[in-house]
Amino acid sequence: MQLAFAKMDGLIPAVIQDHATQEVLMLGFLNPEALEYTQRTGEVHFYSRTRQRLWKKGETSGHVLRVRQLLFDCDADSLLIRVDPAGPGVCHEGYRSCFFRELAPDGTSRTVAERAFPPEAVYGRKEAQ
Amino acid sequence: MQLAFAKMDGLIPAVIQDHATQEVLMLGFLNPEALEYTQRTGEVHFYSRTRQRLWKKGETSGHVLRVRQLLFDCDADSLLIRVDPAGPGVCHEGYRSCFFRELAPDGTSRTVAERAFPPEAVYGRKEAQ
Repeated sequence: MQLAFAKMDGLIPAVIQDHATQEVLMLGFLNPEALEYTQRTGEVHFYSRTRQRLWKKGETSGHVLRVRQLLFDCDADSLLIRVDPAGPGVCHEGYRSCFFRELAPDGTSRTVAERAFPPEAVYGRKEAQ
Repeated sequence: MQLAFAKMDGLIPAVIQDHATQEVLMLGFLNPEALEYTQRTGEVHFYSRTRQRLWKKGETSGHVLRVRQLLFDCDADSLLIRVDPAGPGVCHEGYRSCFFRELAPDGTSRTVAERAFPPEAVYGRKEAQ
C-alpha cells in the first residue's frame, strides 16, 4: 500500500482519535519515517514542521499514544489513528484534546472544555510535548 | 480570532466528525473563503486542491454536511467540524467514512467497513463529490 506523501511535500495529515471515547484529540503530520516508527513501536510518532524533526508524542510528558488501529482514506492522503492515550490529555495547554475552543460565525471564540491537568507541571517548555 | 492559514499556503486541514455517532468521516482543507461560506451557510465547504476551487461537500450528491460545532486547536492551525451528515455516507466510494481501510504494520491493507450506498448511483464522476 502506497500512501500519497508526495501530495504535501512528504507529509501526510493524521487525525488522532481516542479509541475508547471516540474524542478527536489532535491532528499531526507524519513523514514516511514517522509512519515507520509508529508502526514498528506501536506508539504515535509525528514529524514536527516547526522543529523539522521526528518526535514521539509524549517523549517529554510521558503521555504517549498507543496505536489501536491505523486507517487511511480513499485517496490514501490522510490517516486516522485510533489510540489509547497514556496520559490525562494530549494538549500542551493542559486539555484532553487540542480542540478545546469553539469558533463562532461572528469570529469570536470560547473555550468549551475543562482543563484536565496543570500543563506547567508536565511541560517545561511549550515546544516539548 | 485569527487562524494560521499562512502555515500551509493558505489552507487549513479540517477533521469532519459525525456529531451523533462520533465517527470521523473525512479530512478536507479549507481556505479563508471556504471557512466564510461554511460559517455563513452552516454547510461545510472545502477548497479542493485537485480542482483548485471552492466546493460545497454534497453539491453533486446532495450529501451535505450541516455544521453543529466548529472547533480549532491550540495552535489555531487545524479545525474539527462536528456535523450532521445529510446522506448515508461521505465517501465517493460508497462508504459512510472515507477511512474504511486499515493499514497493517506489514504494509498490507484491508477494508474494515461495509458499503453504505452504491456510489455509481450517486456520483457520475469520481471528481464530483
